[in-house]
Amino acid sequence: MQKEDRILLSHGSGGKISHDLISQIFVKHFSNVHLEAQTDSAILKTSEGEIAFTTDSYVVDPIFFTGGNIGKLAVCGTVNDLAVSGAQAQFLSCGFIIEEGFLLEDLEKIVASMAAEAQKAGVKIVTGDTKVVNRGKCDKVFINTAGIGFLPKSRHHISFADTIMPGDKIIVNGSIGDHGIAILAAREALSFRTDIVSDCAPLNGLIEQVLQEPSAIRFMRDATRGGLATVLCELASEKNLGIDIDEARIPVKEIVKGACEVFGFDPLYLANEGKVVMVVDGNMADDILTEMRKHPLGKEAVIIGEIVAGHPKKVLLETAIGGRRILDMLAGEMLPRIC
Amino acid sequence: MQKEDRILLSHGSGGKISHDLISQIFVKHFSNVHLEAQTDSAILKTSEGEIAFTTDSYVVDPIFFTGGNIGKLAVCGTVNDLAVSGAQAQFLSCGFIIEEGFLLEDLEKIVASMAAEAQKAGVKIVTGDTKVVNRGKCDKVFINTAGIGFLPKSRHHISFADTIMPGDKIIVNGSIGDHGIAILAAREALSFRTDIVSDCAPLNGLIEQVLQEPSAIRFMRDATRGGLATVLCELASEKNLGIDIDEARIPVKEIVKGACEVFGFDPLYLANEGKVVMVVDGNMADDILTEMRKHPLGKEAVIIGEIVAGHPKKVLLETAIGGRRILDMLAGEMLPRIC
Repeated sequence: MQKEDRILLSHGSGGKISHDLISQIFVKHFSNVHLEAQTDSAILKTSEGEIAFTTDSYVVDPIFFTGGNIGKLAVCGTVNDLAVSGAQAQFLSCGFIIEEGFLLEDLEKIVASMAAEAQKAGVKIVTGDTKVVNRGKCDKVFINTAGIGFLPKSRHHISFADTIMPGDKIIVNGSIGDHGIAILAAREALSFRTDIVSDCAPLNGLIEQVLQEPSAIRFMRDATRGGLATVLCELASEKNLGIDIDEARIPVKEIVKGACEVFGFDPLYLANEGKVVMVVDGNMADDILTEMRKHPLGKEAVIIGEIVAGHPKKVLLETAIGGRRILDMLAGEMLPRIC
Repeated sequence: MQKEDRILLSHGSGGKISHDLISQIFVKHFSNVHLEAQTDSAILKTSEGEIAFTTDSYVVDPIFFTGGNIGKLAVCGTVNDLAVSGAQAQFLSCGFIIEEGFLLEDLEKIVASMAAEAQKAGVKIVTGDTKVVNRGKCDKVFINTAGIGFLPKSRHHISFADTIMPGDKIIVNGSIGDHGIAILAAREALSFRTDIVSDCAPLNGLIEQVLQEPSAIRFMRDATRGGLATVLCELASEKNLGIDIDEARIPVKEIVKGACEVFGFDPLYLANEGKVVMVVDGNMADDILTEMRKHPLGKEAVIIGEIVAGHPKKVLLETAIGGRRILDMLAGEMLPRIC
């Protein structure tokens, strides 16, 4: 049997192979306009405005790491998927799959941190489910969260990225790659494992702060699996846009840079759990930046590039040393089970 | 470390130990009125009526069995949780956790059957997520579905079971235990494994058919993990009601009876995936039964008992041989990974 007949780790990477699987199996069979849109959350019409609906399963390994745990991640991740759709996150579900023999004490720690994060984000966990599988049939605990948010009409365009135009600026709210390296450090028990903290956080507060002028926000996405590069490449490719990025402006912590050099990773592809990429009206970009920097999670927000009329479908990176390179989507899998 | 410090298989049984875990950890930390209500779906107020929101993870072993597979189960189970809340199921999410090396062909079979079932049930799968874990870190595939349904005002009472009164009749739509024995047969490769077919089916069509007079429907629940007995015991205990059941009227297939005798199971506790327990207005019970029997999934619907004023919190079973016994909630775990 050929390799391609089977699921590979890279099918879960969030990169190109994941995309192919989604189109070739899921979208094909479940065929409907909501799924085909491939927005972060499904945007669903109800008689009163619209709701956003999203889901993610979390299988991060290890389940506890500096800056968070699988439960915190499960709440933040789903809140963030709603928030980047422009929706006001309101309700979460949670489904636990737990390995027989898992410590109740650890379960309670996870649940307590989910509760704390939900409160911080102003969402309620309103329904749930627990399954237990025999020892060895799952790895400690997996958590799924689904979320519902209400989407004001004025923000409908954000998910669909259909108001983006050349001259729009691209903002990121702080340093990239922290989550990826925090997980790597926890996994490998690296000596710097307590120095690098996952950026895992609910971004809905920060995002609400800039949504007072919704038309100025053209598009948002949280840069999780596949990292900043994947968000930019997907956007360029799906919307037939050119993107220019100035590498020198992208904030990367020294410790993350160092780890990337040692392990051969590119920080642009590392997962984040508290970073949003925003495409905003070029004329409003400075005001939006000022507004973002007032929020604790936006203090280090910067403009990293812009939408251009040239080279459609391509993301060009002006490198720190003055060259230019084309940024590609993540092809394989850098760090499995990062979220 | 004591046994009770760790997760046991019975924590996932849907019985008493599951309940304790839910109250002592999840409800405690996630504390809010929606979760505390412990309804099948969370009932959420929006400016326009209410929506129901529910989730379930599916870890059934084996993933393919006579009458269904894990994907069909994942669609039907969540549709049914919405339907028994009185809600009109509309949208589903799905989250896949897949083991590295899983056959793409099997994944596609599962996804295709989810699509078919969703179409049958009139719901759309609108958002999803795929994670892949290393070989040996999960057992083939786990699926979470969450669902949203719209709940007409006239049906609000159903989830909360607050209009039930003595004289109300209890109806079940057909034979019990089929799913439990179908899974057992598939697992053990029993000789009768193709003769016993899981009852896995979306019940929303059948349920809509009897909801033309919503006030006559006092309460509904699908009898999944923990079986018919657990539904009745939970209802009696939570609502401080007495329930009398006539065992002779409960439909159980001969093949299920036989398997139960061999394996020492009680069909009342076996899981079903296409059976709804309804509590209905005693004066309307015969009309409702007639209506149910017009639907393919309700042909064998029968009245199995009634709500009584005596013996609150207790379910009394009049046994086939004329004795009476008290029905208890499932204490341990009969068949792990039944759904």
